[in-house]
Amino acid sequence: MSSSPAQQPSPQLFFQTINAHQRTEALKAAIELEIFTAIAEGNQSAAAIAKRVNAAERGVRILCDTLCIMGFLVKTDQNYGLTPDSAMFLDKKSPAYLGGATEFLLSPMLTQGFESLTEAVRRGGTAVSEEGTVSADNPIWVKFARGMAAMMMMPSQQIAKIVDPQADKPLKVLDIAAGHGMFGIAFATNNPKAEIVALDWPNVVKVAHENAEKAGVGDRHKTIQGDAFEVEFGSDYDLVLLTNFLHHFEPSMNERLLRKVHSALKPDGRAATLEFVPNDDRISPPDAAGFALIMLAGTRAGDAYTFAELDKMLKNAGFARNTIHPLPPGFQQLVVSEK
Amino acid sequence: MSSSPAQQPSPQLFFQTINAHQRTEALKAAIELEIFTAIAEGNQSAAAIAKRVNAAERGVRILCDTLCIMGFLVKTDQNYGLTPDSAMFLDKKSPAYLGGATEFLLSPMLTQGFESLTEAVRRGGTAVSEEGTVSADNPIWVKFARGMAAMMMMPSQQIAKIVDPQADKPLKVLDIAAGHGMFGIAFATNNPKAEIVALDWPNVVKVAHENAEKAGVGDRHKTIQGDAFEVEFGSDYDLVLLTNFLHHFEPSMNERLLRKVHSALKPDGRAATLEFVPNDDRISPPDAAGFALIMLAGTRAGDAYTFAELDKMLKNAGFARNTIHPLPPGFQQLVVSEK
Repeated sequence: MSSSPAQQPSPQLFFQTINAHQRTEALKAAIELEIFTAIAEGNQSAAAIAKRVNAAERGVRILCDTLCIMGFLVKTDQNYGLTPDSAMFLDKKSPAYLGGATEFLLSPMLTQGFESLTEAVRRGGTAVSEEGTVSADNPIWVKFARGMAAMMMMPSQQIAKIVDPQADKPLKVLDIAAGHGMFGIAFATNNPKAEIVALDWPNVVKVAHENAEKAGVGDRHKTIQGDAFEVEFGSDYDLVLLTNFLHHFEPSMNERLLRKVHSALKPDGRAATLEFVPNDDRISPPDAAGFALIMLAGTRAGDAYTFAELDKMLKNAGFARNTIHPLPPGFQQLVVSEK
Repeated sequence: MSSSPAQQPSPQLFFQTINAHQRTEALKAAIELEIFTAIAEGNQSAAAIAKRVNAAERGVRILCDTLCIMGFLVKTDQNYGLTPDSAMFLDKKSPAYLGGATEFLLSPMLTQGFESLTEAVRRGGTAVSEEGTVSADNPIWVKFARGMAAMMMMPSQQIAKIVDPQADKPLKVLDIAAGHGMFGIAFATNNPKAEIVALDWPNVVKVAHENAEKAGVGDRHKTIQGDAFEVEFGSDYDLVLLTNFLHHFEPSMNERLLRKVHSALKPDGRAATLEFVPNDDRISPPDAAGFALIMLAGTRAGDAYTFAELDKMLKNAGFARNTIHPLPPGFQQLVVSEK
C-alpha cells in the first residue's frame, strides 16, 4: 500500500488483452448496423441514431459510448460525432469506405486460424488445414479482392508515383496475385502508356478486371488465370508487382518464384515488392512486426520478413540491387529490385 | 487513438481494432502453452522455450515476438524475459497467477454474447438467452468463482482496510453473490472477530467456503445457498458486501434488493458496493465506462452505473449517505453506504 500505483504490478494489461476480442465485435456491430453512416447523415443523439438504424436506444447508447472510448466517435453532451478517420473510412457513402474489408479480415478462414493458435504454435504453422489460406483457388481471395480494394487505394497510388514518376513511357506490368487489382490499375491510371497483365485464380482475377473497367483502363488490363508458381508469365516485362504475396511462403519457395520473375523481366526491368517489413529485432515497428502472427495462424510457413531476409531472397534469385521505401502513413514498405 | 485534425486520415485504428481479437487469442495461447512459466524457469531463447513447452521453435519465436509487441515480454538480442506484471500474474508458480481467469473471461457464455452483439444492440439487451449470464444457477459462476479469485485478492484486501480499519470489534458480514468469496474472506483475515455469511448458488458458495478454509477462516465462514433476490438474509449484520453484483440488473431490481439489504442491517450497519463506476459522461475512465458493453452483451438490462445513479438507487432503498472510494491501481471503485 505504501508504493505508488505506477510501481505496483497491475492486471490491467492482462484484463484488457483477454477482452480485446470485444473491441473487434463492437466495431463489427457498428459497421453492420451502419452507426457511422447514420451519424454522417446528421443523427447525433442515441435516440435519433437508434431510430435510423432500427435498434434499441439503450443498445445504441452503450455501443456509441464504447466507440467513443475506442476512438471511433466523439461525444459532446449527449451527442455523438464522427472522427476524421471514421468520416473517411466508415461512412458507407464515403468513396474510401472500408467496412467491406471486414468480410475478408473476419472471414472464418482467418478467425479459425486464431481460434487454433495454440496448435499452430505447437506445429509452427497453421492448424486450419495443410496449406491454410493459400490452398488452391481458396474462395477467401474473392472476399479479399472484393473487400480490400478501398484499403489499398492510397498505397497503390503511392507506389505508382515512386516506381513510375515520369509516367510518359510504355510500361508493361505483370501484377502477380493481383487480387482486387488496385496496384496494377494504379499504374494504368498514372501512365496512359502502361499495359497491365494481372495474374490470379480465375474468380479473383475477374474482380481485378472489373475494377480495371470501372477505373476506365479495362482495355489496357489483360489477365492470366492460375497459380503464380505454375502458370507461364510471358516475358519482356518492364515491371513485376509482388504485393502482399511473399509473406505467405517460406524463403525457398519465394526464391523459386523470384527466379521466374527475374526471367520474365526485360534486361532493365524491375520488381516492386510490397510487404510488412519488421526491423531486425522483429518486434518493431509494431504493426509490421505483428503481421508475423497472422501468417503463423493462417499459413504453413509464411512470415513477416525483414529487409535483410527479402534482400537475400531477391539476390539469390538474381536481382542486383534492392532499395526500400516507406509509404507513410501506412505501415507497409516497398522494395524496388533492379534486374 | 484517433488522429488529430492536422494528420492525414489513416485506416490504422480500423485495422488494429478489427484485428484486436488476435491479441486475445495470442495471450490465451501463451497461457495454455505456459510460455510465461517456461521463461520464469529460466528458458530465454525461442529454442529453449519451445523445448520446455513442447512446441515448434518457429511458432514460439513468432508468438513471443507478438507478446513483446503487446507488452507482456521484453526481448534483448534473441532472449525473452518477463515484465514485472507478467512475472506476478502469468507465471503459473506465482501466488497471484491470473491465467485461470481466462476460463471465465473467455467462457462461451460470455464470448457468445459478443458474437451476437449486433442483435444485442438491436434488442437493447443480451441476445444469448432471456436472462443471459444471470439465469438461475448458471454454471458460468462456478468458473467465475474458480478463475477470478486471484484477480480479486488485492482489491478485497484494500476494501477490508477501508471499511474496517481498526479491525478490533466483532463484525457480522453478509457477502452477497460471494462467488470465490475473497471479499468476505479478506474481512475475516483482517479482523479475527469478523464472522462471514456468504450467499450464492449452491455450487458456487461451495467454492467460497473452500477458499475460506484454505485461508484458515473456515470456522467463521457460514453459507446461504440460493438466489439473492429470493432467500432470507437473516438480520443484524454490521456490513453487507455487494461486490460486482448490481451491474447485472436494472435500477428497479437493484432497489428491490437494496431495500432487503437495508432491512438486514443493524441500525448503524453499512453496505459496501464494489462497481465499475463511469463518470457522468459515460466514456471515462475507459476501463470502467467500457464495462457497460459487457453488460449489454451478456445481460438483459445490466449497466455500468455512474455514482449519481448508484447514489439514487441506494437512497431510494433507504440509505442515508453514500461515499465513493477509489482502489488504485485497479479501475473499480467502492461505495460505502450508511443506514
